[in-house]
Amino acid sequence: MTIIIRASNQLTRTSGNANFWHSQCLVLFSVVLMMLCLIANSEAIASDKSTAQSSLLVKKQRFDIQNFQTFGGENIEQVSVGWESYGKLNKDKSNVILITHYFTGNSHAAGKYQESDTTTGYWDSIIGPNKAIDTNTYFVISVDSLANLSVHDPNVITTGPASINPRTNKPYGLSFPVLTIRDFVNVQKAVLESLGIASLYAVIGPSMGSMQAIDWAAAYPEWVPRMISVIGSAGTDAWTNTKLEQWAIPIKLDKHWQQGNYYGKTPPTDGLVASLMFITQAALHPEFFNQVGENSLSYSPMEAKPLHSIHQTHSIVNWLKERAAARAKTMDANHLLYLVRANQLFSAGQQEGKNLKQNLASIRAKTLFLPASSDLLLMPYLAEDAHQLLKELNKDTQLTHLEGNLGHLEGVSGIAKHASHIRVFLSN
Amino acid sequence: MTIIIRASNQLTRTSGNANFWHSQCLVLFSVVLMMLCLIANSEAIASDKSTAQSSLLVKKQRFDIQNFQTFGGENIEQVSVGWESYGKLNKDKSNVILITHYFTGNSHAAGKYQESDTTTGYWDSIIGPNKAIDTNTYFVISVDSLANLSVHDPNVITTGPASINPRTNKPYGLSFPVLTIRDFVNVQKAVLESLGIASLYAVIGPSMGSMQAIDWAAAYPEWVPRMISVIGSAGTDAWTNTKLEQWAIPIKLDKHWQQGNYYGKTPPTDGLVASLMFITQAALHPEFFNQVGENSLSYSPMEAKPLHSIHQTHSIVNWLKERAAARAKTMDANHLLYLVRANQLFSAGQQEGKNLKQNLASIRAKTLFLPASSDLLLMPYLAEDAHQLLKELNKDTQLTHLEGNLGHLEGVSGIAKHASHIRVFLSN
Repeated sequence: MTIIIRASNQLTRTSGNANFWHSQCLVLFSVVLMMLCLIANSEAIASDKSTAQSSLLVKKQRFDIQNFQTFGGENIEQVSVGWESYGKLNKDKSNVILITHYFTGNSHAAGKYQESDTTTGYWDSIIGPNKAIDTNTYFVISVDSLANLSVHDPNVITTGPASINPRTNKPYGLSFPVLTIRDFVNVQKAVLESLGIASLYAVIGPSMGSMQAIDWAAAYPEWVPRMISVIGSAGTDAWTNTKLEQWAIPIKLDKHWQQGNYYGKTPPTDGLVASLMFITQAALHPEFFNQVGENSLSYSPMEAKPLHSIHQTHSIVNWLKERAAARAKTMDANHLLYLVRANQLFSAGQQEGKNLKQNLASIRAKTLFLPASSDLLLMPYLAEDAHQLLKELNKDTQLTHLEGNLGHLEGVSGIAKHASHIRVFLSN
Repeated sequence: MTIIIRASNQLTRTSGNANFWHSQCLVLFSVVLMMLCLIANSEAIASDKSTAQSSLLVKKQRFDIQNFQTFGGENIEQVSVGWESYGKLNKDKSNVILITHYFTGNSHAAGKYQESDTTTGYWDSIIGPNKAIDTNTYFVISVDSLANLSVHDPNVITTGPASINPRTNKPYGLSFPVLTIRDFVNVQKAVLESLGIASLYAVIGPSMGSMQAIDWAAAYPEWVPRMISVIGSAGTDAWTNTKLEQWAIPIKLDKHWQQGNYYGKTPPTDGLVASLMFITQAALHPEFFNQVGENSLSYSPMEAKPLHSIHQTHSIVNWLKERAAARAKTMDANHLLYLVRANQLFSAGQQEGKNLKQNLASIRAKTLFLPASSDLLLMPYLAEDAHQLLKELNKDTQLTHLEGNLGHLEGVSGIAKHASHIRVFLSN
């Protein structure tokens, strides 16, 4: 095991180099821009490049399933999800690239709903005409997850614990069945089949999306000739499981949560906001935080307010909390719990009685793993281990590290730097 | 910035090497032993070596101060703290080594209270006769912090929010003044002065103890010719500040917390237990968790209970929670909030209107920094930046990384590996 961690620290800036800081300020500026997008629009962690320009205009569409069977063996009478597509489906339906979204995201992967939108889909920098995932060539499609976090976003369609149970005419709450990554995959498969699609050109996704991508490749190998896992893993290890539980705990502690029965009453907003604070920090890296602290907040450990009152908190804590509170408005706390659980249960290609290596043995796709070196959430060892297992199974697999100081978010907002790698992988 | 993270992952173990796993099991065994100590005794994160043998028998002593002035300018009428010492004070009182303790610790740095104790002080492997910090030579002393977390441990004496305010005859709660690392230092100074001591041979501490050590060196340079910072920093950066806030949040969300007014009522135990779960994970590293998951729990992401009920959690979550619940019994939630705040406010040698580098300029001590390469809590860049600042100030400073897979805890339970380094540093 080798661990080397390096991050800039605002406390040492008294001796900083001006040129270095000029370039760092540019990085910070673009990342702050990205964070502002996050606040304005819960679905978009758009990179600076993607906020300015997109030639795609897209429309959220709706898909319904009756009596959806979960991986855990339960029935959901009525499932509805939103989906988006970019580019055109060719005659033999052989040009389909499925994009699977991350934990706090949805199917808005690229484009704008209308020209006046200030943000684009989160991967707009690599999806579009003549971009790495070229919509002149490919039909690109993405589907909102079940129990999508942003259930109150008008551009999200999802079924989850906040939905009305047709049997009781009341919200499900915790009576909603436990979901798994496979359930997200199976809903996507149903959407594709409804369009007459029987196989993919590729499946690509970041973070929770990477879990769906490799699960697709292992569970439905005949569908998947190419798979790209960005900031991903092949299964949730014990460490990541308990880290994910940290996001559930604040919600369960909120007195308004009431075992999930808060619909029509005061929702557990404080718990949800705390959880979102944890998620944002988990997805970032010290270097980013310390630049925000230094450049935007004049952060100092010895700030007067928290020194003189236990009721006050530091500027950086307030900054994080305000952004989480803004994002929480379109989100549902129970949905977050179900997403946490789906991520905790993740094991690619899971079949009864088989271990991970046996499950991965079915993969036919050539695979590309893109972990971020600075990722403190799904640490690069997870993708490295998956890649190693596939090598041992004599699969066609590649791995390249995303470099940069954004941590886990390198796989979302830093992806444009690796556009050519993705383009080349897809062209073969 | 360079970040490389590597950890073993139980998901890949189908292809494991037997010899490798034999040695890993030995490491795991010793760490589990350490964790058991943690459970049995909140004050001791003793290494396997230290649990077996200690030739020191020690006694907690008591020290009282009337009208203690805090760094923030408030008055505490009556302060009491416990302290321990090992070895003998020499005639000219020139052989004093002060040990400053970590967040969840207290002054029980070495030895046992009675022969039958199953654990020893947390650094017993390096403190004692003929050990690195040799009690045949040095008079070693340590003092319980104000607002010590383990206020209900019979071997801890501390004043904090759970103490009775002599003015009201009721517990302070949140009316207790905000504390800083300097306040811990000033209490220690008062204890030393009461023994006629006017200078130290050295000050040494891990984690929160390292904050006190460097604050001593900067605030009272005439006292400190040698300082060792183990898994430490020179000030709390924005990233670490928000990470620390994650430990406060669960307590504040607990409905029983009641703005700190829970004395004589149901305490916020769920929040405190959640906070301790976060602290334990923050102080460790994926490799440890995944070994526990694999070797002790047969952890699997697709465990049946959490798959079939949203009310159930994974084995690794239950394991962490049970240990936190056991530790919580001697701890107080408000005390934890005050410790979080003291750590958030930390800036070594803080003086009004000066920056960190100016504050460190007063240091006369030769210094040694021992960050842990695998530390995900006080990441090694913090100690590296402090060391770099001192180099720029032409101070006598050294830095060596502690290697190993325990994360932050390398500085507590892994310290014996670096005994010779500490011995040599002290001998000069």
